[in-house]
Amino acid sequence: MTAPDAPRKELQFEDLATGMALDSRPRAPVTAEEIIAFARQFDPQPFHLDPEAAKASIFGGLAASGWHTAAMTMRLLVDSVPFAGGSIGAGQEELRWPRPVYPGDVLRIRTEILETRASKSKPEIGLVKTRTTTFNQNDEPVQVMVTNIVMRRKV
Amino acid sequence: MTAPDAPRKELQFEDLATGMALDSRPRAPVTAEEIIAFARQFDPQPFHLDPEAAKASIFGGLAASGWHTAAMTMRLLVDSVPFAGGSIGAGQEELRWPRPVYPGDVLRIRTEILETRASKSKPEIGLVKTRTTTFNQNDEPVQVMVTNIVMRRKV
Repeated sequence: MTAPDAPRKELQFEDLATGMALDSRPRAPVTAEEIIAFARQFDPQPFHLDPEAAKASIFGGLAASGWHTAAMTMRLLVDSVPFAGGSIGAGQEELRWPRPVYPGDVLRIRTEILETRASKSKPEIGLVKTRTTTFNQNDEPVQVMVTNIVMRRKV
Repeated sequence: MTAPDAPRKELQFEDLATGMALDSRPRAPVTAEEIIAFARQFDPQPFHLDPEAAKASIFGGLAASGWHTAAMTMRLLVDSVPFAGGSIGAGQEELRWPRPVYPGDVLRIRTEILETRASKSKPEIGLVKTRTTTFNQNDEPVQVMVTNIVMRRKV
């Protein structure tokens, strides 16, 4: 698995161009305790809470809530892909979980810049369309999201 | 604000039809502590962590991470909209946060059934397209998501 260093420098709107890709470091392995703690608070369904019950589910074993995968992805994004002014999205155009996250999985992300453009109504605002894919230790995608990030432009 | 009782009975695929709407009870008010605790773990950006720093941000004050809003929505869904077999989605077709969630906000959801259909390849599986809108105490949407839920059919 490649694990390139995270970029250190804040990324300005002007630094971004279609085709760029930004990689995070891998995260510490996901633990069963983390999966269960998140599920207790936000998604208390048997396959996210109880390893025994999860065996009979479509996941075949304890699996993280998709919202937990999304939250872990956000943390990787904040820590490793330093958009100047922060990662502020008005929502996702797409958010898919092609496969579950299991205890022991080591997650990392790659953020691709799909498009950059100035806002028509507010020239001081830039919009950056990104695709962030979350991979497990086998380089299999566990989440794909396409987001429009809002950034300040230098005008 | 209307606050209808949550349906008690598990909803089978056969119970669902286009045009149905299911309402949750309102959740306890969101606290600054909850917002900050979630942000520390998953989205440590100043406008989600620090009420003072947040004043200067586009949110104008401490605001919940969108992923926190999504997670609270999932909890309302699990507690109030009892799809038989659980709420299992392969992802969101759409996920938008039209306005922020602030401390004191009282959230509730409405889930609308947009479409139900049998899987072509697996007749024992039913697909239910839902739109779940999360409202604040002023009946303003804070999140809109469109999800395909996977359910077992009686065949």
